[in-house]
Order: sequence, then C-alpha cells, then structure tokens
Amino acid sequence: MKEKPIGIFDSGIGGLTVVKEIRRFLPREDIVYFGDIARAPYGSKSENLVVKYSEEALSFLLKKDVKLVIVACNTSASVSISSLKRIFPNIIDVIDPVIDEAIKLAKKAIGVIGTKRTILSGIYEKKIKEKKNGIEIFSKACPLFVPLIEEGWIDNPITKAICGEYLYGFIEKIDVLILGCTHYPLIEKTIKEVIGNEIVLVNSSQATVSAVKSFLNENGLLNPGGGKTMFWTSDEPGDFKKLGSLFLQTPIYENVKRIEM
Amino acid sequence: MKEKPIGIFDSGIGGLTVVKEIRRFLPREDIVYFGDIARAPYGSKSENLVVKYSEEALSFLLKKDVKLVIVACNTSASVSISSLKRIFPNIIDVIDPVIDEAIKLAKKAIGVIGTKRTILSGIYEKKIKEKKNGIEIFSKACPLFVPLIEEGWIDNPITKAICGEYLYGFIEKIDVLILGCTHYPLIEKTIKEVIGNEIVLVNSSQATVSAVKSFLNENGLLNPGGGKTMFWTSDEPGDFKKLGSLFLQTPIYENVKRIEM
Repeated sequence: MKEKPIGIFDSGIGGLTVVKEIRRFLPREDIVYFGDIARAPYGSKSENLVVKYSEEALSFLLKKDVKLVIVACNTSASVSISSLKRIFPNIIDVIDPVIDEAIKLAKKAIGVIGTKRTILSGIYEKKIKEKKNGIEIFSKACPLFVPLIEEGWIDNPITKAICGEYLYGFIEKIDVLILGCTHYPLIEKTIKEVIGNEIVLVNSSQATVSAVKSFLNENGLLNPGGGKTMFWTSDEPGDFKKLGSLFLQTPIYENVKRIEM
Repeated sequence: MKEKPIGIFDSGIGGLTVVKEIRRFLPREDIVYFGDIARAPYGSKSENLVVKYSEEALSFLLKKDVKLVIVACNTSASVSISSLKRIFPNIIDVIDPVIDEAIKLAKKAIGVIGTKRTILSGIYEKKIKEKKNGIEIFSKACPLFVPLIEEGWIDNPITKAICGEYLYGFIEKIDVLILGCTHYPLIEKTIKEVIGNEIVLVNSSQATVSAVKSFLNENGLLNPGGGKTMFWTSDEPGDFKKLGSLFLQTPIYENVKRIEM
C-alpha cells in the first residue's frame, strides 16, 4: 500500500503547483497527475457538469491504483467533494487545509479570491463558518487571473493593475487572504505588492501538501522509496509540457500521456 | 426549403454577434443557434478535438433540418471547415467573407487578431495568400480579449491598456485590421481608440451576414416569412441567457434549451 502513488487531478495545469510542493516536501512519493485540459476550464461550467467530470477523473486515477487522491482543482473541490468521497474515502482537497490555516491566522476577517464558479458556490464561506462561527469573510471572483497567468504575464504592470481593480475595496477589511485557486501562487508576488505587508497570504497548494504529509504519516502510508511522476492529459501532451513547466518551475522531462475523456 | 431555418454554431456565445447581424439584415430568417458552452473555449483545445466537437455540432444542427450552416467560431472554422463541408455542402464560415472584404480594402498590409488556436493555425495568412498573393499579413494572438469581454470590461482603461500591449508593434505596418474572433466586435470601440482612424477595421460577423444574404438570394432560399430564433446550449441555459444578452445587445426572451454533448 505504501508504495502506491498519490493521484492528483485538476481541470488543467494549475494543480502542478501542488505537484511542485509534493516534490519539495514529500520527494519520495510517486505521483500520477491528470489534467483534464480538453474540458478545461471547469470554472465556467455548471455544477452538474463539474461533478460529472470530477467523477470521471477520479475513476481514471483509481484505475492507476492510487493510495490517496488530491482534488487539486478548487472548482471541482467546491462542488463535487461529497460525491467523490462516496466513491473513494482517501481524498484531500485544496479547500479544507487552507481554511484551517487561515482560521489559525485570522484576527480580523478572512478574504477569499478564486474563479467565478468557486466564489459563486460559497464553499469557503460555508466551510469557514462551520469551523469557526462569527468570523467575517469577504470573497471576490477574479476570472481574469487564470488567463493572465496562462498568457505568462506574471511580472506585468497590467496584471498588477487588474489585481488592484479586483482587490481594492475589500483588502482594508481583512487580515488574511486565501488564494483559492491553484493558479494564483504564480502571481503571489504581484498580489503581495498590491495588498501590502499587513495581510497574510495563504496558499492552498502549500497548505494541501502539509495536510497530505500528516495524512500519510498518521496512516503509515509514507513511501520509503519512490519519487517518479506520471503525467496524463485529455488533450495534446505538447501544450501540457510547455505550459506545465511554468507551474512546476522546472522543465517536464517525463513522458506526458494522453487519455481520451 | 426556403422556410427552413439557418443553423449557427459556436463554442459559446460569441456567435451571437452573427445572430445580431442576421436579425438586422435578414429579419425574416428563422435561426437555430447552438453554443457549446460545456466544452468552451475551443481556442485552447487541440486541432483534432476541435474537429470532433465541430462535427458533433454540425450533426446536431442537421437534425434540426437547417438549409444552411454558419460556423460562427473562428477556431472551428480555422481547422474543421473542410471536414464539415464533406458532411454538408451549404456551409459559410466567419473567415472567408471577412478575408474577401479585407482584400478589397487593403492597400498596404492586412493585420489579423484572434485566439491563440486561430492564429497558430495560420489559416488567415494561408487563405489571404491564396486569394491575393503578394500582400503582406501580420497576425497576433490576443488570448485575454475573450475573458475581458466575458468579464464585461468593455469600456475599461485596463482593456485599452491590454489592447495597446497586443497591438503596438504591428499597427504601424497595416492599413486593414481583421477582427478574427466573434467576441471582438464588443470591444471594437476600444480597439479603434488604440489603432486610430488610419486603419480600417473589418468585422467578421458583419462580413459573414453579407455573404449569407448573397448565398440565400442567389439560391432562391430567402425565407418569405419567418423570424424566430431557437437557442440551444450544452450547459446551463441561465448562464447562456445572461451573458448572451450582452452579445445580442438585447435581452433573450426566448426559451434556451439544453442538449447534452
């Protein structure tokens, strides 16, 4: 069981920021990553459709005999997690861990940014209130961040201006800001420049990998000697490799395989 | 045959700019519109996948017994038109008509802007060269325009700055600019402010509807007395209605139906 890989899925390549953190903090784990590029982005799709796609992604990973599945897509985690847990219990998503960290840090109020679908789902508000009633939450959809990042406009004055447009008006109310999308760590520096030093940024990829480490440790599932990553995508492997390197911050030397969904 | 509807498909709602022009210039035609929202955007998908999706969309419209199909998605037109014409000959796309108009107007060189997939396909260069060899063509992918428009940032200084970022560097070389994406007419005013009065903008939705009018006229297919529009989408009708109104510049009073793709 220990030697089995960790499965990760995302609608695209954003979940690779989680792979990056696993390689850093759990370098002996094998990983099977599935990016559903053919049907990305999930963020603009309806709830029913996102649940259907997520169940299909889970089913693919289970065929790869994984010991644990990370739902690295906020949109998917925000609407499909209970359906997925009915199919397979060992699931960690990118929402719960970051919420736990935000609650620990917040003294005033928590802000959340994410895709349109994630924010409309209200999942962060709901979960934060369940865990700590009484804390104030402000949320804001930032639908331009994903295309800006995929355009590679990381250190760009326009990206900074768009951050400002989205974030002014609610940053003075909060002291912790959750990056509720696995793409956003790539513009963390720009976001920090806009919100200043008074607000703590919490990053879902890092928080998720801490939760994964605890889970594997508590259940005696830490792999003593792996370290490989297998990449799968539902569209062209070439595009996945090129854009994926940006998120991993290292080239993808591995073979990227295609699976029709 | 005359009374049959015109079929239109697009990956999403951009093709509604074509519907708007049909209602204006051919108000007696019935229209069946299909927006493949569940699998949008096509612009970031591989060529094979776009061809498959386009064939499925065509097959859906043929079941609605249409007399003519307009491929209102530039990405689809740029890669799938020859496959589609093998299935059904009465097809007009949004590329050929706008190219004919641009060639008529250009004295110096033609510029083309569109999604990443459309520009990478090189279809505009190829077709322009086939029709008028020797004319210079400059093209530029503008992947942020679609999300900006869908965010509703139409009259916005940030949109203007992004236009500048994309267009400076090649506008001084051209005298005609093709809007190679059915979303772009919505920011035509902003693009005009950036490129100035020396460059003529040609808009694919308008050029396409002129071509449709000529085709129906020449083949004795003008409908003497219709005027209804039927909307179909592969995802939530509610979202389609809301965003669609922006493109039609009038509310959608009709029932929008859903079809699983």
